Amino acid sequence: VSSEKYQVAIIMGSDSDMPIMNEAAKVLDALDISYRAFISSAHRTPKKTACIVQDAEQNGAEVIIAGAGLAAHLPGVIAALTVIPVIGVPIKAGALNGVDALYSIVQMPPGIPVATVAINGGKNAGVLAAQILAAKYPVVKEHLLRMRKKAAEDVVNKDVKLAQLGMAQYIKEMQ
Amino acid sequence: VSSEKYQVAIIMGSDSDMPIMNEAAKVLDALDISYRAFISSAHRTPKKTACIVQDAEQNGAEVIIAGAGLAAHLPGVIAALTVIPVIGVPIKAGALNGVDALYSIVQMPPGIPVATVAINGGKNAGVLAAQILAAKYPVVKEHLLRMRKKAAEDVVNKDVKLAQLGMAQYIKEMQ
Amino acid sequence: VSSEKYQVAIIMGSDSDMPIMNEAAKVLDALDISYRAFISSAHRTPKKTACIVQDAEQNGAEVIIAGAGLAAHLPGVIAALTVIPVIGVPIKAGALNGVDALYSIVQMPPGIPVATVAINGGKNAGVLAAQILAAKYPVVKEHLLRMRKKAAEDVVNKDVKLAQLGMAQYIKEMQ
Amino acid sequence: VSSEKYQVAIIMGSDSDMPIMNEAAKVLDALDISYRAFISSAHRTPKKTACIVQDAEQNGAEVIIAGAGLAAHLPGVIAALTVIPVIGVPIKAGALNGVDALYSIVQMPPGIPVATVAINGGKNAGVLAAQILAAKYPVVKEHLLRMRKKAAEDVVNKDVKLAQLGMAQYIKEMQ
Amino acid sequence: VSSEKYQVAIIMGSDSDMPIMNEAAKVLDALDISYRAFISSAHRTPKKTACIVQDAEQNGAEVIIAGAGLAAHLPGVIAALTVIPVIGVPIKAGALNGVDALYSIVQMPPGIPVATVAINGGKNAGVLAAQILAAKYPVVKEHLLRMRKKAAEDVVNKDVKLAQLGMAQYIKEMQ
Amino acid sequence: VSSEKYQVAIIMGSDSDMPIMNEAAKVLDALDISYRAFISSAHRTPKKTACIVQDAEQNGAEVIIAGAGLAAHLPGVIAALTVIPVIGVPIKAGALNGVDALYSIVQMPPGIPVATVAINGGKNAGVLAAQILAAKYPVVKEHLLRMRKKAAEDVVNKDVKLAQLGMAQYIKEMQ
Amino acid sequence: VSSEKYQVAIIMGSDSDMPIMNEAAKVLDALDISYRAFISSAHRTPKKTACIVQDAEQNGAEVIIAGAGLAAHLPGVIAALTVIPVIGVPIKAGALNGVDALYSIVQMPPGIPVATVAINGGKNAGVLAAQILAAKYPVVKEHLLRMRKKAAEDVVNKDVKLAQLGMAQYIKEMQ
Amino acid sequence: VSSEKYQVAIIMGSDSDMPIMNEAAKVLDALDISYRAFISSAHRTPKKTACIVQDAEQNGAEVIIAGAGLAAHLPGVIAALTVIPVIGVPIKAGALNGVDALYSIVQMPPGIPVATVAINGGKNAGVLAAQILAAKYPVVKEHLLRMRKKAAEDVVNKDVKLAQLGMAQYIKEMQ
Repeated sequence: VSSEKYQVAIIMGSDSDMPIMNEAAKVLDALDISYRAFISSAHRTPKKTACIVQDAEQNGAEVIIAGAGLAAHLPGVIAALTVIPVIGVPIKAGALNGVDALYSIVQMPPGIPVATVAINGGKNAGVLAAQILAAKYPVVKEHLLRMRKKAAEDVVNKDVKLAQLGMAQYIKEMQ
Repeated sequence: VSSEKYQVAIIMGSDSDMPIMNEAAKVLDALDISYRAFISSAHRTPKKTACIVQDAEQNGAEVIIAGAGLAAHLPGVIAALTVIPVIGVPIKAGALNGVDALYSIVQMPPGIPVATVAINGGKNAGVLAAQILAAKYPVVKEHLLRMRKKAAEDVVNKDVKLAQLGMAQYIKEMQ
Repeated sequence: VSSEKYQVAIIMGSDSDMPIMNEAAKVLDALDISYRAFISSAHRTPKKTACIVQDAEQNGAEVIIAGAGLAAHLPGVIAALTVIPVIGVPIKAGALNGVDALYSIVQMPPGIPVATVAINGGKNAGVLAAQILAAKYPVVKEHLLRMRKKAAEDVVNKDVKLAQLGMAQYIKEMQ
Repeated sequence: VSSEKYQVAIIMGSDSDMPIMNEAAKVLDALDISYRAFISSAHRTPKKTACIVQDAEQNGAEVIIAGAGLAAHLPGVIAALTVIPVIGVPIKAGALNGVDALYSIVQMPPGIPVATVAINGGKNAGVLAAQILAAKYPVVKEHLLRMRKKAAEDVVNKDVKLAQLGMAQYIKEMQ
Repeated sequence: VSSEKYQVAIIMGSDSDMPIMNEAAKVLDALDISYRAFISSAHRTPKKTACIVQDAEQNGAEVIIAGAGLAAHLPGVIAALTVIPVIGVPIKAGALNGVDALYSIVQMPPGIPVATVAINGGKNAGVLAAQILAAKYPVVKEHLLRMRKKAAEDVVNKDVKLAQLGMAQYIKEMQ
Repeated sequence: VSSEKYQVAIIMGSDSDMPIMNEAAKVLDALDISYRAFISSAHRTPKKTACIVQDAEQNGAEVIIAGAGLAAHLPGVIAALTVIPVIGVPIKAGALNGVDALYSIVQMPPGIPVATVAINGGKNAGVLAAQILAAKYPVVKEHLLRMRKKAAEDVVNKDVKLAQLGMAQYIKEMQ
Repeated sequence: VSSEKYQVAIIMGSDSDMPIMNEAAKVLDALDISYRAFISSAHRTPKKTACIVQDAEQNGAEVIIAGAGLAAHLPGVIAALTVIPVIGVPIKAGALNGVDALYSIVQMPPGIPVATVAINGGKNAGVLAAQILAAKYPVVKEHLLRMRKKAAEDVVNKDVKLAQLGMAQYIKEMQ
Repeated sequence: VSSEKYQVAIIMGSDSDMPIMNEAAKVLDALDISYRAFISSAHRTPKKTACIVQDAEQNGAEVIIAGAGLAAHLPGVIAALTVIPVIGVPIKAGALNGVDALYSIVQMPPGIPVATVAINGGKNAGVLAAQILAAKYPVVKEHLLRMRKKAAEDVVNKDVKLAQLGMAQYIKEMQ
């Protein structure tokens, strides 16, 4: 395991979770936050999972993002091993569409919280990690405020476009 | 930790789960199956949980019964540490009435199963443990068949009573 | 009906369940466990179902795996006829996506348990059957431990690949 | 088993279901329909259940009402043994409040229907049985129409009372 | 409206329900039961719905099958207008996949039952209608028994095929 | 039926719904809006229900509030008979706690809407009725704005009290 | 922002909601009701949302239709800012298929109602807006009654077609 | 509003949420973290809510904890006004037992996350706030580790007690 410092550890239970978890990484990239990504299963590689948590602690990680589907134990198992805040991403998978993962992640017992975001909410996991870091790193806060402003402008631009085109035409152009 | 042999380990995440888990113990007592009961949380005492699994393996346990409520990770975390069959009991607790625990226990990913019984199904966890042991221990099988016969007779007796009393009277006597 | 011995009976309510139930068979094949597969419906062929259970008992089956969708009564009906442990596989089918099957299988009344695995959890049914047999057959236990080790190595290899490629490239190669 | 004729068999899986099933009996009593009530479990006494179905067929039963809770297999198991129409009553019990029983009863596979009524809908099971019999027994139809008229009058009387008292006073008198 | 007699009225709320309701009709055709099919909405054509019920009563219908999706009021509205038994078919439609229709149909208040079958259970609505008619029409009962026997033979044939081919080959041939 | 004019008709399916529906009436009283309350069931008294709708139309009602539990058809049945806006109140009743009523009321098909409020949302039905009337009756709008202001002041006062007492003391005083 | 008067404001949280919200606009167009459509997010542009509500009030809007998916706060946030009646349209989006949006919109606390329609019920939002306006604008009422009549005729025509073709042929022609 | 600095703002929508939110406060007290508690509704006092967020920002708050029941918009509305991390506590209230609040809080759209904890998870909101602060305040981290150790010891002590007493006796002493 490397010894390079990183601010956020992104841990996923399976590589099938990667497209969602990459949304978190893209936010961190955009906000100049360093991170390292890992694949480790709470059930298939419990010891490796513990090592990754140790790696994260030793390399200065201040937030951990963990995503898993089905009986999604990974975020809770990680939260049990550290007091670094753990953000849990329930992944939509299998017959229950992620409701199982949501309940497995959010309903943690008293004392060991997981900060849960929406099902498949990879992007928001990245944003929440940044918001947590922003208290310490003013530059992250500035980036976040700029990102918010940009998102607001996007909405405003769409509203202007709607006022110009009307709904029928707008819908046509979306297709 | 003791070195006395036992056939079944009963592990619960909190002592509030005990009234349900005791239903399993009562079945094992009735069927002359030895067991040892533990309290250990997947999240508050992850290392202790691993030690208990080791204790169970070393002392010859052939089945593990694990019960937990809410984001019930305990059965799955144990199943990740051993190939002894793990029976999971979702405990009814909190706002979701045990649906969260059911999903957290039954929806295990491929490779690491937990044999899940009904919400608050402590008794059935005991019976299932006995059925697993029965292949190896003919006396357990005999006990089980006797227990089944007894349960059938109870139903028959109630049906006879109903035929004699009629429903209205039967209901009165139940109160 | 044949008189060849087998360790596991796999019973499905309909041939539409076969792709899922075959996942169980593949595990048993990989672990050198003998099995026989049957199609029999709890509702369309109740007597045949009873005969299959008898066949299983007479031919030495030590575990029964039963899968069904919708109002999935098959596993419970079988469990009522034998004390051999019954593993239930809820099949995703119809408008409720397998939640109906899950509830119909897992919520068995006291005294007659079904060891329930995840919706469409055919593979885990096979693994659980093997874990039950492993107490009696040390070679099965060895196979299981090897399978677990292999699964852990797969995760580790993917994690190494991720460390080398990064997420963006890894995702591209997955497509 | 007796040889007296009856029009409806009422079968319940446990005597804890009796208060709900008695609502069906009360309707049948009120409509002068003969019935016989049984306790028999799909799982604890599968053979007895089959005998009761045979008894019902031999004694001329034209409708069967079956009630059960949890993984409520009883109505479906009975429906598999006869072509007499089976009315299923999901009983509210356990952590899932009867949703498990509803799904286990209503989601029957093609070919073997169960006529399902509301959770704890014992009264409606009796009414539905009567409606089925009414095609053959004009007197039952008359009784049913009278019962409907009576129920309508009850509503009308309450509406008159409300017009006289106003809501505030009506509520006071209800307490 | 015609004056030809028919045994069953099939009423659907929208022509989009027809593929499911036609499954009921196919069963009735196969069992030589006469029926007439109608489209009428509880909400868009409430008076027409009442006329159809009257038409059904006058032309001797002994069972009504009603199917609807979403807030599926049609079966209950019809049941309020007649004491002919009404079979309700919840249609899978919209965002809730038919759970809304199931609850709207099955949870009828005391006094006005609807005999509910599975979501999209058109075929079972036909079978249940036939079972209700069978008490009066021995030929229908014979047909039903033959249909059951045929369904059982289909299962047996598939089981034989499975015994011959094995699962892997059987699955290949299914594709 | 009377010929006095009223602005709102309040219709409930059963007098057991009255405590919730009275919350609507209390709002209307407080805002000086005239109303008349009725009990009429969509299923037990369908004709009376139609008469009440006619009465409402003839006596100038501009909004109808309808509440029902279980398979709550009343609001939709009323909406089918008039173009006066219908506000539906799902009543919590039975095993499903009002989810059945919510789905039966809100999931109306295209063309016939019901303006649905929260489960047991009697008060909000009254407020919504007032908001609908406010466009035409400026005095109602003034009353509504005053009611809103009062509600805001209540919150502010509680916040002041909290600032003075602290949470521990505030909780004690609440008991 | 413009100063042209309009009767209805249609506000959506994202342009991905537009195909559904356009169904409302189409109804308003058909009924000659003036409206203006806006895109504004409760979360990304909270101030703009408040400005739009002000714009609506100043330009005479008498109804607001607001649609949103996921944690659909937009309708409730708008309802908090005005006493104009707000119609909420839960949009089907994400893993929970719109159940999250339905609950977020319909379960408003006492005092601040949102008139909720079905998931993706854009058309009914338009119809409900028209029904609210109809009390004040007799021409809208006439349009509504004509639209209802037309919808009823469509059903009747389909029923006639079914009587002529039979189900099998009708289904063929639908494809 | 005061000008005293505080690290955490606790905001609840209603004083009925206070017993749950006080669990968060108790954790903060135990860990020597300063906080200020507010009552403000997203719907009844939207402007006050915005002022409180401003107050929190100006007085140095680094985390906001917001709790609400039903259509629980408060946490999301606050998250829209600041980039300070917002922890959302779904409160169990009303007919849906907090599932509505959970979905309304956790399913936030991309860009504006709320860190969601369990239904009624007030204690975990406090712990999560402390974990977020711990990166900047080493003393908080020490406190957290001590609290974890204490919680683990509690579990161990209970396990020792269980080993001494056995389940039957332990249960008796719990009562």
